[in-house]
Amino acid sequence: MTKSLNTLMNVEDYKTLVDRYDVFLFDCDGVIWLGSKVIPGAKETIEYLKSQGKKLIFVTNNSSVSRAKYAEKFQKFNIKVEEQDIFSSAYATAVYLKDVISFDMSKYVYPIGGSGITDELRAMGVKVLEPHFPTIKNVDDVQGIVPDPSVGAVVVGLDVEINYSKLAFAHINITKSNALFIATNDDSTLPVQGLTFPGAGSLLSVLINSTSESPVVMGKPNQIMFDCISKANNLDLSRTLMIGDRLDTDIEFGTRAGVDTLLVFTGVTDRELAASSPISFTHSIQSLGDISKLAQ
Amino acid sequence: MTKSLNTLMNVEDYKTLVDRYDVFLFDCDGVIWLGSKVIPGAKETIEYLKSQGKKLIFVTNNSSVSRAKYAEKFQKFNIKVEEQDIFSSAYATAVYLKDVISFDMSKYVYPIGGSGITDELRAMGVKVLEPHFPTIKNVDDVQGIVPDPSVGAVVVGLDVEINYSKLAFAHINITKSNALFIATNDDSTLPVQGLTFPGAGSLLSVLINSTSESPVVMGKPNQIMFDCISKANNLDLSRTLMIGDRLDTDIEFGTRAGVDTLLVFTGVTDRELAASSPISFTHSIQSLGDISKLAQ
Repeated sequence: MTKSLNTLMNVEDYKTLVDRYDVFLFDCDGVIWLGSKVIPGAKETIEYLKSQGKKLIFVTNNSSVSRAKYAEKFQKFNIKVEEQDIFSSAYATAVYLKDVISFDMSKYVYPIGGSGITDELRAMGVKVLEPHFPTIKNVDDVQGIVPDPSVGAVVVGLDVEINYSKLAFAHINITKSNALFIATNDDSTLPVQGLTFPGAGSLLSVLINSTSESPVVMGKPNQIMFDCISKANNLDLSRTLMIGDRLDTDIEFGTRAGVDTLLVFTGVTDRELAASSPISFTHSIQSLGDISKLAQ
Repeated sequence: MTKSLNTLMNVEDYKTLVDRYDVFLFDCDGVIWLGSKVIPGAKETIEYLKSQGKKLIFVTNNSSVSRAKYAEKFQKFNIKVEEQDIFSSAYATAVYLKDVISFDMSKYVYPIGGSGITDELRAMGVKVLEPHFPTIKNVDDVQGIVPDPSVGAVVVGLDVEINYSKLAFAHINITKSNALFIATNDDSTLPVQGLTFPGAGSLLSVLINSTSESPVVMGKPNQIMFDCISKANNLDLSRTLMIGDRLDTDIEFGTRAGVDTLLVFTGVTDRELAASSPISFTHSIQSLGDISKLAQ
């Protein structure tokens, strides 16, 4: 099975694309940078789009750092991006709790994850529980982990400091304290320097398996994060474009939300994979950097 | 949907049962003891069956302690059981590697789990890798975890000292070193003092999710452990009875292997659950202890 890649080839194509949309949603890794290297021309494309009065929003499943810290990554590449133009899965979780489901703010959230989650929750006025656990050396020590009725929600993201106490405490509050079960994202793998490691979604599967409950998942490709972005920015879907390098997260995210999509080939997807995948996209382009030719 | 529970009611029933079989396979927790308390009469039943020349084999998915340590648990209840009559999922794993698949003994096994796994593997002459990992505080530190081509198999059991380095090292050797992916058992929960916590199968789901590979699972209800027991004891299936308290592990284990089964109601299954479950069993009895009436 192959299909047309609707590839944008020249400056006329790029011009038509830019004129067609007012709001550009960007995935970052694989689109603007790849690991620690900026994609050539990406900075210039972003500056050009801004100069044309376009609204740019940066959408990431990365919940390990706060939006403020994430903005510093743009600064490192000399790209000027405001914190409020970044939408991370951790921030979406905070917006979801506060604005979408009116979480009982007298309750605590127990987070599995890094400071990205904790910082975003606290910035939204959500109380975060940081329990001290007993040392768990053998199965009998697990008795020291008990439910805490003040826990109103468990939020799970990538946590490279994961341990059994954290998983046990999350499990027991989902099953015994009736805590909400929320995940920042469910990426099964974490790409690091060309290798993959277990991602947030794989850690999450421990609790899905042990509790037999399904979490509400915020990150791409799920609709909830799009709804949060759309509400905050009053999006006109017909004039919005989602740009990404992953078919099953970025492109699927745009498609489910009903906006046009642009696939780039500077990340995890090559032309062969794009042609054989059942996932459709509106346009493709070799690199986001190509659009910078319009600025010349 | 209800069904007959084929409940054994009196000493005539117990006598017929004992005469009918030569080999009795026992699950332990919920059958012989419940947590730290022995089931009344269980010790006497075991002694009676031995006095009648029956072969008794104790089958446990618990891989956290070695068979030698597990035998000490019987001693605590004053029940005499030999190490060679205990068949644990960790021991089954060692037998499987050495005798069933002729594992390349020049390679290492990387275990996630406690000393139960390590001790059983070493006793079988299998080399066990105990790597020292770099401290992982943030995502960038994950780069310090690299594949080791000397790893021939990853064995996953319950590990209450689980951490990201262990999961990452297991993941990367399954995906990059072509290591075999084996699990001692896949129990989703760990019952502790009337509560449940994440079990070996839930920790295992991290790697199933991240690697997209399916492990070979040793423990009940899987056939592999039964085949190991059957081979080691030259079982006559028509004269073998599997006794347990769990329908989806113990009873299913016996049924898949083609032997008769006896369900007891001293563990996780009550009569209501047994009557409504689609899982069938040959006989049921309130308690293993009831059979001790034959000794009086």
